[in-house]
Amino acid sequence: MSGRAIGRRGFLAAGAAGGAALVTLGGIEYRADAKLDVEAMGNRMEVPPAVADYYHRQSQTGYVAGPAPRAAGGGATREYWIKAVKVPDWDIVPTHRDAMMDRPIKGKTTITALAYQRFAPGFKQAMGRPQIPGPLIEADVGDTVVVNFRNECGTPVTMHPHGIFYTVDMDGTYKGRYTTPGDFVENGHTFRYIWEANPDTVGAWFYHDHGPMDPIPVFKGLFGPLIVRDPTVPLPDREFFICFHSFTPPYISLDTEFMCVNGRAYAGNTPTLRAKTGESVTWHVYALDNNFHTFHLHGHRWVDTDGGYLIDTKTLGPADIITVNYTEDNPGRWFYHCHVFTHLHMGMNGWYLVTE
Amino acid sequence: MSGRAIGRRGFLAAGAAGGAALVTLGGIEYRADAKLDVEAMGNRMEVPPAVADYYHRQSQTGYVAGPAPRAAGGGATREYWIKAVKVPDWDIVPTHRDAMMDRPIKGKTTITALAYQRFAPGFKQAMGRPQIPGPLIEADVGDTVVVNFRNECGTPVTMHPHGIFYTVDMDGTYKGRYTTPGDFVENGHTFRYIWEANPDTVGAWFYHDHGPMDPIPVFKGLFGPLIVRDPTVPLPDREFFICFHSFTPPYISLDTEFMCVNGRAYAGNTPTLRAKTGESVTWHVYALDNNFHTFHLHGHRWVDTDGGYLIDTKTLGPADIITVNYTEDNPGRWFYHCHVFTHLHMGMNGWYLVTE
Amino acid sequence: MSGRAIGRRGFLAAGAAGGAALVTLGGIEYRADAKLDVEAMGNRMEVPPAVADYYHRQSQTGYVAGPAPRAAGGGATREYWIKAVKVPDWDIVPTHRDAMMDRPIKGKTTITALAYQRFAPGFKQAMGRPQIPGPLIEADVGDTVVVNFRNECGTPVTMHPHGIFYTVDMDGTYKGRYTTPGDFVENGHTFRYIWEANPDTVGAWFYHDHGPMDPIPVFKGLFGPLIVRDPTVPLPDREFFICFHSFTPPYISLDTEFMCVNGRAYAGNTPTLRAKTGESVTWHVYALDNNFHTFHLHGHRWVDTDGGYLIDTKTLGPADIITVNYTEDNPGRWFYHCHVFTHLHMGMNGWYLVTE
Repeated sequence: MSGRAIGRRGFLAAGAAGGAALVTLGGIEYRADAKLDVEAMGNRMEVPPAVADYYHRQSQTGYVAGPAPRAAGGGATREYWIKAVKVPDWDIVPTHRDAMMDRPIKGKTTITALAYQRFAPGFKQAMGRPQIPGPLIEADVGDTVVVNFRNECGTPVTMHPHGIFYTVDMDGTYKGRYTTPGDFVENGHTFRYIWEANPDTVGAWFYHDHGPMDPIPVFKGLFGPLIVRDPTVPLPDREFFICFHSFTPPYISLDTEFMCVNGRAYAGNTPTLRAKTGESVTWHVYALDNNFHTFHLHGHRWVDTDGGYLIDTKTLGPADIITVNYTEDNPGRWFYHCHVFTHLHMGMNGWYLVTE
Repeated sequence: MSGRAIGRRGFLAAGAAGGAALVTLGGIEYRADAKLDVEAMGNRMEVPPAVADYYHRQSQTGYVAGPAPRAAGGGATREYWIKAVKVPDWDIVPTHRDAMMDRPIKGKTTITALAYQRFAPGFKQAMGRPQIPGPLIEADVGDTVVVNFRNECGTPVTMHPHGIFYTVDMDGTYKGRYTTPGDFVENGHTFRYIWEANPDTVGAWFYHDHGPMDPIPVFKGLFGPLIVRDPTVPLPDREFFICFHSFTPPYISLDTEFMCVNGRAYAGNTPTLRAKTGESVTWHVYALDNNFHTFHLHGHRWVDTDGGYLIDTKTLGPADIITVNYTEDNPGRWFYHCHVFTHLHMGMNGWYLVTE
Repeated sequence: MSGRAIGRRGFLAAGAAGGAALVTLGGIEYRADAKLDVEAMGNRMEVPPAVADYYHRQSQTGYVAGPAPRAAGGGATREYWIKAVKVPDWDIVPTHRDAMMDRPIKGKTTITALAYQRFAPGFKQAMGRPQIPGPLIEADVGDTVVVNFRNECGTPVTMHPHGIFYTVDMDGTYKGRYTTPGDFVENGHTFRYIWEANPDTVGAWFYHDHGPMDPIPVFKGLFGPLIVRDPTVPLPDREFFICFHSFTPPYISLDTEFMCVNGRAYAGNTPTLRAKTGESVTWHVYALDNNFHTFHLHGHRWVDTDGGYLIDTKTLGPADIITVNYTEDNPGRWFYHCHVFTHLHMGMNGWYLVTE
């Protein structure tokens, strides 16, 4: 059941109340109150000639990875094999319960999601199931990250990184007539992204689709974490990667909006995180939807990156990422959650369990 | 006139336009387009057995406060006696005028609010009227804060603090089957919260309801300020505690949404703040609703806690708090306000009067 | 076709879905679903007596500028001649294309805007066309800024500055019965604003209308950038002033909302910015509508003013301004954009072209 093209111009307006919002992709407009069939829409996209030629040649030869380049920065080459895949049975609320309010979540909670999935070299076998967010991409300063990215999700998508250094051909961003092969990876094809962990790129960052179907694939789950580490800084005892996002009609085939942490909604479904007193704990908190959120953690506080004052709540907009560090000192069963009250009650919370 | 339970699942969607949003509390669903009767809803909540037992024993003995504990941190014990009460005649716009636009505010502006109210030891007599926000709770580093909290507001509520140290039994947060007595203070009963002003908890913080009716009591006024001071830092000459929040249908029994500062809307009703040139001035600006705000002050600017650059506007999300410091140098009649234009015109502004 | 006064109280609710939102100005209420005729509305505003008297005297003598005051801070006097004007043919999408998605933008994209326009001394001739944002006002620390402001836009407006020092009579903010002449500049008249670039006012700031029609004139384009520089800090090789804002019904006479950068929507219409590798680059990013935004730049990152960590995305609320500094090192065709996905697809993006 696809959106259907209609004959007047429109705009992307996710969740706008009252009226048939329109989605325009590739010059074709769709009614957003219908469920969006991103595959059918992708099939109707015009493939830029330079892109078509690139993947046509690949069709004839197959993907030849070749040896990964040596790291220009003198470090290691970190080679990844990642697919974008369709997940027809992603359950947003597997327990069908909201543990905070101790109530059932009735109705269907399963969607067809899109996700990144990590594979062994040569795409030989899957390393775990598809994840939302996708697999962690890690590098130390001086390393080069090589991602052999195969698109098997049915619609053209990409991997666009934040923060790490990349030349413009490695941007993974659809640019209309300026689109290059890495900006529009056709279904069934593979592109090798090469990104450099330069010294001035230390931090926790995103990667996400930014291809011609943007933002639909992101809203279906195509995003993940990337981190560039300073190897002189010790790793924390516990490190959490937590993303606040939402599954929202018409981007999902449900009538209900879910406010999620890492692809799930409601405590008991979202990640239950664990630490022990005395441990150093780091949270990397990501946000990626149309909403603004505030990250709040019960029973704890931390020094803000803002010159030294203490907070326990922090605002995050789309694509913002914050890093929170502290030494664990408070055992118990705690909540972490978005402090936007409606988001909290639509599922954006989770358990944090501290033992002595 | 209560919300009525209905037979399908829903979610909290304050102010959502067009359609009957649903509120689910304790597994029971209510139409949010009806006025919410938080007392009737509270009566239908299942009291967790451990909680019921705790308050049942209290029913038999009465509340026995006992001596307040000595401060583990070596400081003073700061003992408070605070009630949650119903305020049937809270007037959001007592002057019935918007002084900024010099226009009348017509129609009913009185609601049934919930508020914290401070009492003398032993709840002997009220220390002032119920306030929105509630009474300031103050401690120096090393102190222990003891709050004897009596719930007389008709529905189960709590006091959940931010920032200050508290063990998990002092969290004041409903947790489904993990709920403890401090997380669900039944109407008519008393709970003693003990919180520690540890050295790493300096700052301005919130306390607010986080009980089983969340977020309805917060949206009716159950929040207040708490501050942990470093006693080596001199107090400013003027210190303001200002909270941006809203009174919004269906959480109030009016058809109009008011954007408020400290429980009132529109300059002349919101706090009129005063300072003199040469004085040191501190603003603690709080936000607590579903919205994001920007605090702006006319005629002034301050060094942001972000490493040293000057600002006169700052974004605040739900539960964010900022502290603004400057030396007063500019006499006159000034506005402070939220710079979201619609919020400003829905009441979120006030006078700041500086004399020489 | 004006809004028409109606007989019950209301509030400003731009873009509120489902129902006739009301706008109240000067005690008169208008249906916001009609197109707002800000001139007709302005004509119905009561002019405060002190203001009327001031401009009545000016009507008799004409505007006599007199010599500009010497700078109290020992610096230069920076004298500007600026008009507020009506622009009946402001085209939001002059190319009628969205270059990112390579698609046509059909339909009417021209509105009647309001804009600030710079003139030569004595208003002798225009220095360029009316701009959105308005002309850059610049000062070094110690300078005095003098703005001879003539209102020819048909409705009472002002210039209200942020950040720079100004006494209360130079606030440019309508204050009901406390309104002074600089707070309500009648159409056809001139007011001289004098603002002081004190040492503690360094930074990039706004000026914008804050008169009796607020926020309509701002929503039609009446805002601009102001900067106070520390002359000991070298100027960057490239300096960009970029404002995220929107043109939204009912404030414009179109049915579509546009998310804009500097008065235009969609890459190819918004500013195309340019730099070369090796150059020092500074972005001053402003936000001024009812929305929150996140500024994101592809292929680059910068040290946040927050004590030294790297970001490539930053949240901005209404009237927030951030300054971004880096040395250019990455040639290519890049996007800068708001990372709120719907804002991006409603036009809030642009090209940044870096050559070697």
